[in-house]
Amino acid sequence: MKNDKILLDHGSGGKISHSMTKDMMLPVFDNAILAALNDGAIFELEGVRLAFSTDSYTVDPIFFPGGNIGDLAINGTVNDLTMCGATPLYLSVGLIIEEGFPMHRLDTIIKQMGRAAKAAGVTVITGDTKVVPKGTADQIFINTSGIGLIPEHIHVACDNARVGDKIILSGTIADHAITILTQREGLSFETSLQSDSAPLNHMVKKMFMAAAGIGIHVLRDPTRGGVGTALNEIAEKSEIGIEIIEDKIPLKDEVAGACELLGFDPLYLANEGKLLAFVSAENSNAVLKAMKSDPYGKDAAVIGEVIDDQPGKVFLKTRIGGRRIVDMLAGEQLPRIC
Amino acid sequence: MKNDKILLDHGSGGKISHSMTKDMMLPVFDNAILAALNDGAIFELEGVRLAFSTDSYTVDPIFFPGGNIGDLAINGTVNDLTMCGATPLYLSVGLIIEEGFPMHRLDTIIKQMGRAAKAAGVTVITGDTKVVPKGTADQIFINTSGIGLIPEHIHVACDNARVGDKIILSGTIADHAITILTQREGLSFETSLQSDSAPLNHMVKKMFMAAAGIGIHVLRDPTRGGVGTALNEIAEKSEIGIEIIEDKIPLKDEVAGACELLGFDPLYLANEGKLLAFVSAENSNAVLKAMKSDPYGKDAAVIGEVIDDQPGKVFLKTRIGGRRIVDMLAGEQLPRIC
Repeated sequence: MKNDKILLDHGSGGKISHSMTKDMMLPVFDNAILAALNDGAIFELEGVRLAFSTDSYTVDPIFFPGGNIGDLAINGTVNDLTMCGATPLYLSVGLIIEEGFPMHRLDTIIKQMGRAAKAAGVTVITGDTKVVPKGTADQIFINTSGIGLIPEHIHVACDNARVGDKIILSGTIADHAITILTQREGLSFETSLQSDSAPLNHMVKKMFMAAAGIGIHVLRDPTRGGVGTALNEIAEKSEIGIEIIEDKIPLKDEVAGACELLGFDPLYLANEGKLLAFVSAENSNAVLKAMKSDPYGKDAAVIGEVIDDQPGKVFLKTRIGGRRIVDMLAGEQLPRIC
Repeated sequence: MKNDKILLDHGSGGKISHSMTKDMMLPVFDNAILAALNDGAIFELEGVRLAFSTDSYTVDPIFFPGGNIGDLAINGTVNDLTMCGATPLYLSVGLIIEEGFPMHRLDTIIKQMGRAAKAAGVTVITGDTKVVPKGTADQIFINTSGIGLIPEHIHVACDNARVGDKIILSGTIADHAITILTQREGLSFETSLQSDSAPLNHMVKKMFMAAAGIGIHVLRDPTRGGVGTALNEIAEKSEIGIEIIEDKIPLKDEVAGACELLGFDPLYLANEGKLLAFVSAENSNAVLKAMKSDPYGKDAAVIGEVIDDQPGKVFLKTRIGGRRIVDMLAGEQLPRIC
């Protein structure tokens, strides 16, 4: 009864949201595709393997350095499909707009969505617009759902990590979250920082080519809940242990500084243009090289590996030589981050 | 510049929302699938014909006689896919919940979604939950998107109406809108009335069997904007004229009474479990009979036909023998009706 009301924590992507999904949603919508809890659903239809994903965007502020709610909504669903091993193809856009929202801002958002769709190579083929009376929603919320096609030889899923896999992170972490936070709080000490909002499908295509399709076992974009939560999900689903090395995790100086000042752990902060890849050791160099050749992977690094004990647990080797458990995010650090 | 802010009218499903879609969205997301403006997108992927649809639900109140926002969200997307000629298969659910929303109400909504999905024979395979701070959304908004499979011999689209087609309406109109309105305004003169929220896919399957697949040219569920707006869309897209007969349109006495009292035209009020079918004359009796054999079509009636002049226009033969133009809904009658 202590949880008799919905808390911000229930939307955090961390422990409490996972519990709600498992306790309330999975028993009702009882099926194996949903229960796999990948970034999107993976299923077969008339012999064609498809991915299907949905996400609602409620970010505040709706305009921020590096993007706006529009490209965030396109890139987010493009990336979720990509993390299923799919080539993203078709998107839907559902708008909920507050009465009185300036038309020119909507126009800017729609145009940015169009540019983002073009950059990712996807097509928006269906949509819906609802307008709610002033005061019943905050400016604009956007849902995007998407369909992608999974090539025959590609099998990635969050239960597919294997002992010995190298864990590659595509670039610096927490840029998006710290950008939003500094904007929201009116902090100005990070003027050059911007959101990493980006489509990752083109880079992933290069990665699959480099790995001949078969060496990449898991792909995950560490959005809400950050790298820490994403790794915990993979460790749990794959029943393997993970060790990452603090020193290897790409992190901008200004982001590290902001985190220290504000008391945030960057491991749990949201990214909107980064991915984690679990790659067989023999393919890891080729995949890393492919990532580094892409603008969205230029700072990619091997940050750790899958170990052969402690299934379900994630460990961090700290800079000072210690080893600590990285738990799943417990509560909400930053509401309306995406 | 008079439209420099978003108005409730922009979400009405009528004239102004159509203008915004055409002027702002279509040029940006430039593609033929979207431009067809069917209830969902119809496309082919690796030789498989699919339908893809999205809708956000913001209904107020969220619980009402005959259903709640949960079954409305499932049935709405099931019906949109069905109107594309598709067999609805897989749905996504995106929740935006206001902080502080009672957990037991969410649980009731989710369970109702589960029951509605089961009744329609669809599976919820992916989802997303966002929680926003108190005061930034009103209770709960739900997006559902869905994927359906279109059988090879079936081709329905809103540009496919043909001269001589009979127009069949599956039952009484405006039940949903008047139910919501009376609830919202605290009116109590319609105690027995309830929303018609229902999945129409099983009935449509019977209709296709009765018409050997080929005699049904257009299917449309007259939700926001009502029968009047839906018929105008079809007349415009198919470039044909339509004549309907007022006396033939099924309408409950209490709904007629409420409309008269409150000054609403039932032709423009939302339905959530009704459909319009344009059927070749030779198949119309068999299709009507199939509809009447289904609980959701027991009051089905031929309400008019496609005429061979006045393309793009809809006419109503009134009870007193007159003939008037039924225009597309201009503004919003009832915000947050679905």
